[in-house]
Amino acid sequence: MKNIRSFKTIALIGRADIPDLRELLILLARCIRKRGFEVVCEAQTAQAARLTEYSLLSASEIGTRADVAVVIGGDGTMLGMGRQLAPYGTPLIGVNRGRLGFVTDIPIRDMLRVVPVMLEGRFEREERTLLDARVLRKGSPVYHALAFNDVVVNRSGISGMVELSVYVDDCFMYRQRSDGLIAATPTGSTAYALSSQGPILHPQLAGIVLVPIAPHTLSNRPIVLPDHARIAIQIVDGREMNVNFDTQSLTQLQLKDVVEVSRSRYTVPFLHPAGHSHYATLRNKLGWHEHPARGARCPDLN
Amino acid sequence: MKNIRSFKTIALIGRADIPDLRELLILLARCIRKRGFEVVCEAQTAQAARLTEYSLLSASEIGTRADVAVVIGGDGTMLGMGRQLAPYGTPLIGVNRGRLGFVTDIPIRDMLRVVPVMLEGRFEREERTLLDARVLRKGSPVYHALAFNDVVVNRSGISGMVELSVYVDDCFMYRQRSDGLIAATPTGSTAYALSSQGPILHPQLAGIVLVPIAPHTLSNRPIVLPDHARIAIQIVDGREMNVNFDTQSLTQLQLKDVVEVSRSRYTVPFLHPAGHSHYATLRNKLGWHEHPARGARCPDLN
Amino acid sequence: MKNIRSFKTIALIGRADIPDLRELLILLARCIRKRGFEVVCEAQTAQAARLTEYSLLSASEIGTRADVAVVIGGDGTMLGMGRQLAPYGTPLIGVNRGRLGFVTDIPIRDMLRVVPVMLEGRFEREERTLLDARVLRKGSPVYHALAFNDVVVNRSGISGMVELSVYVDDCFMYRQRSDGLIAATPTGSTAYALSSQGPILHPQLAGIVLVPIAPHTLSNRPIVLPDHARIAIQIVDGREMNVNFDTQSLTQLQLKDVVEVSRSRYTVPFLHPAGHSHYATLRNKLGWHEHPARGARCPDLN
Amino acid sequence: MKNIRSFKTIALIGRADIPDLRELLILLARCIRKRGFEVVCEAQTAQAARLTEYSLLSASEIGTRADVAVVIGGDGTMLGMGRQLAPYGTPLIGVNRGRLGFVTDIPIRDMLRVVPVMLEGRFEREERTLLDARVLRKGSPVYHALAFNDVVVNRSGISGMVELSVYVDDCFMYRQRSDGLIAATPTGSTAYALSSQGPILHPQLAGIVLVPIAPHTLSNRPIVLPDHARIAIQIVDGREMNVNFDTQSLTQLQLKDVVEVSRSRYTVPFLHPAGHSHYATLRNKLGWHEHPARGARCPDLN
Repeated sequence: MKNIRSFKTIALIGRADIPDLRELLILLARCIRKRGFEVVCEAQTAQAARLTEYSLLSASEIGTRADVAVVIGGDGTMLGMGRQLAPYGTPLIGVNRGRLGFVTDIPIRDMLRVVPVMLEGRFEREERTLLDARVLRKGSPVYHALAFNDVVVNRSGISGMVELSVYVDDCFMYRQRSDGLIAATPTGSTAYALSSQGPILHPQLAGIVLVPIAPHTLSNRPIVLPDHARIAIQIVDGREMNVNFDTQSLTQLQLKDVVEVSRSRYTVPFLHPAGHSHYATLRNKLGWHEHPARGARCPDLN
Repeated sequence: MKNIRSFKTIALIGRADIPDLRELLILLARCIRKRGFEVVCEAQTAQAARLTEYSLLSASEIGTRADVAVVIGGDGTMLGMGRQLAPYGTPLIGVNRGRLGFVTDIPIRDMLRVVPVMLEGRFEREERTLLDARVLRKGSPVYHALAFNDVVVNRSGISGMVELSVYVDDCFMYRQRSDGLIAATPTGSTAYALSSQGPILHPQLAGIVLVPIAPHTLSNRPIVLPDHARIAIQIVDGREMNVNFDTQSLTQLQLKDVVEVSRSRYTVPFLHPAGHSHYATLRNKLGWHEHPARGARCPDLN
Repeated sequence: MKNIRSFKTIALIGRADIPDLRELLILLARCIRKRGFEVVCEAQTAQAARLTEYSLLSASEIGTRADVAVVIGGDGTMLGMGRQLAPYGTPLIGVNRGRLGFVTDIPIRDMLRVVPVMLEGRFEREERTLLDARVLRKGSPVYHALAFNDVVVNRSGISGMVELSVYVDDCFMYRQRSDGLIAATPTGSTAYALSSQGPILHPQLAGIVLVPIAPHTLSNRPIVLPDHARIAIQIVDGREMNVNFDTQSLTQLQLKDVVEVSRSRYTVPFLHPAGHSHYATLRNKLGWHEHPARGARCPDLN
Repeated sequence: MKNIRSFKTIALIGRADIPDLRELLILLARCIRKRGFEVVCEAQTAQAARLTEYSLLSASEIGTRADVAVVIGGDGTMLGMGRQLAPYGTPLIGVNRGRLGFVTDIPIRDMLRVVPVMLEGRFEREERTLLDARVLRKGSPVYHALAFNDVVVNRSGISGMVELSVYVDDCFMYRQRSDGLIAATPTGSTAYALSSQGPILHPQLAGIVLVPIAPHTLSNRPIVLPDHARIAIQIVDGREMNVNFDTQSLTQLQLKDVVEVSRSRYTVPFLHPAGHSHYATLRNKLGWHEHPARGARCPDLN
């Protein structure tokens, strides 16, 4: 774990297709350097933005050498970089070019004002869990991946169902017929799982939610497990099934394959501006339009 | 916490309206005494069953003097006794006279075979959390109660909505218009909260779920909080509102009242027969009819 | 049915608590009179707005004498007046003072421009169905009401469930335990029924939807019946139950009472500005934020 | 439309993989012939069952020559034959070899007793609607199919979403991002649509339900349209999409393709034993376990 009170080296990362990426990065780098931080730049970002004056580092080099990474992009960019930096414990700050995301919560217009303040130590730190998933075929691992949002076992075939047996900590939970099954972290609970009728999990909840997709049995409701649960999903029946991880990497599955899911031993620190409220993010993203009446204060809790 | 390996004094508790309660208690008491345990009987149970040969104890005396309590009845009886014994940490064993419940998992026909084995130390122990709730009016507490399943703020009026502001750990979460709001423990997640579209929470999950009842805003989905959350629900608008605790005790609410909910400092130990599976209970109670194929074993997890 | 092509007498109705009701009505009345229509005013509206220069009519007199009624208010005002005018077939036009409603679709700022054009015959006419409900006690009717949105049988008691048996066209459908049951028209399908997980019904669908409220059995899903169905809901168990009609009128129920619901023989004509789209209303009210891309046209359907 | 009171020629159809298909068909054929009906046999059925003594007919010949078709199999077999016979109006009777289906409601053990009685005129007749769907590419039809249950536009790709624009009667309804969209008949409302949170539609409801699959926008709820609606679903974005019809036939889709769905001009008559109750089928299939109390009668309605 980095000592988060004395950042020295700041890595800049940007989504390649942002139109004014070059200008944004130059502005941010100058502003940071002026305050005495060292700036390094992720190699692909630098290439996309035609930046040459900074040390160019791969993700793993950033993990080793940078104290914090500032990501300009959307939630997808942030989570992708988070997966790569997870083994190194590098904290991330997310700046969003467009509409704010669930985890990229600094609007571009506030970047030059807010990021330096955070780098000097005024921030709220939050650890997010990841899932560690591997595919076993005839008992041997054939695929491995990390997921920030979710591990999704589903039919890739054009129609029909899959039939899955689910075991938790070696105990049989259920067999279900459905379009598939989502295992989601709190971070992923507001993504695909929410569209499939899953609950919202608070980021600090030590839980993993299993959300069936279009289950045959109507009482197959989402179930939230403690995050120390070891989940095993076995393919019992179906044609053309796969498993994907944050909708990014994926692999085809065969009958009797087992997808094992458990909490990763890594967590990823996200840094938010001081005063950050996860509930404000939820209200904004989910259109919970109601605000406390003018003058409303927190009720007296003494 | 009792030393659970060497029970001596066993309390018997039964639901008063079980027709053959007297016979069941006599059979069970004899069977237990024969093995050298001391038997005491809850006073109202003894009265209902016309039993006079045992020490008659109130719930608080059972808490002080008994090492374990055996409850014959349904889930309601079990949870009611659990609330009363919570301050004493007395473990409970549940025997069900009818269809098995979520927490009363020993059928009456197995009672004489299973209970003695458990009393001699072969059981699985599980701690269940409770909620501690109090009502604040103008900042002063006016009502206090424990809940095993849920704290439900809702309109008792004949029609119309309530408007609630919800705060978590002193942060504003949302204002919602609805028929009400359920705060449920994992135990309560399969009760009223499930009917209102809440997720199932595993008993070991350290979480509390907030489930809105018929919310005006469709994106007001259930949200699972860490169980160290301090939840404050303020009545902003509505007529004829109340709060109830496990549908048992209740009190009327006024505008601006605040209902505070947090995890109780007590937990209640439930003892299950060795080999007990919470998933088997869920499969049975929720009609998840699918079973692993004949000969199916847990997938190879090595 | 009025001849909708040649309106002569226009009734004005307004919600009493609108602050500038008097000014709005005077403006509208002048504008209409100038075009040669006769203006009458609903008596309570006139009193609230201190208007004396128009003929003051009760709802039933409006039904008999007016050719169309213009309502200034929200959906509640519109539906309330619709229930009263239903037996007369008087068409309604809805002007909304605040945020547009599902059925009051003319914003106040467009009132003087749009309403006269409609009165001269340029409008779209839509018939909305109502429900006719009566309560039978020991076989005899004891209560009768019309409902535009819904008939809701539910517990008014502070906790506990109701148990209902539902019959359709004299056939037993199911017995259910729940907080209650909603029978909703297409108009009501976007009100309370939607909050309770019911589907949206298109206004032209000849259907009535039954939506259980927090049903004990998870597979008790909403069911849409043809609107010629005669629905009978019998109270089998519960304490303190009532039935309400559009959340307005209501009556207490007793065990064995039967609430009969069927389509009213009346329909209520709503007039919309030419080019009105019910889907635009849904998109706006339900936050379906996506719009067809600029330049998108209806796909070629040849 | 056949004159349903005087059947003469009965077609027998069976699912090829039923183990004792030959014996069942022979028993049924004898029993029917004895009563003076002419028996013909669907050609593939006869081949599977090695039957040679009956006239062997294709589906279209059955449509032309038979007065009624008896299907032994599950719901899939019944719906498949229904699609083929739809243009001819031939009524179907469904016998189920295993667990009763939604539309195959005569158990095999009752076959010899019930079917002859029905053939002699004691039955309840019900018309089921079908959907007519075609795919337009650059305005020209490239695919056409009938569907008894549903038309499903969805992503066949391994992950990601589709973006669809939906038009009803040439009016824009919404643009949605989701895993896909189901258009279902009342028959299909208890199939895939139900798993995706759709409502149940009564078979006599003149409606089509649109059910979004895992929609991005939580307020994109199922919507029930009148069955005269012409629905056009345009592919706005996505990779690897297809449309399937009753999960049987399917075709790949391209960007800008339009899938048009409307009620088929055909309906298919299903014949049920006298006294048949669709609600009993729902109670049985969906596990609505509650039955009217012993002795309960329909409540007094007059």
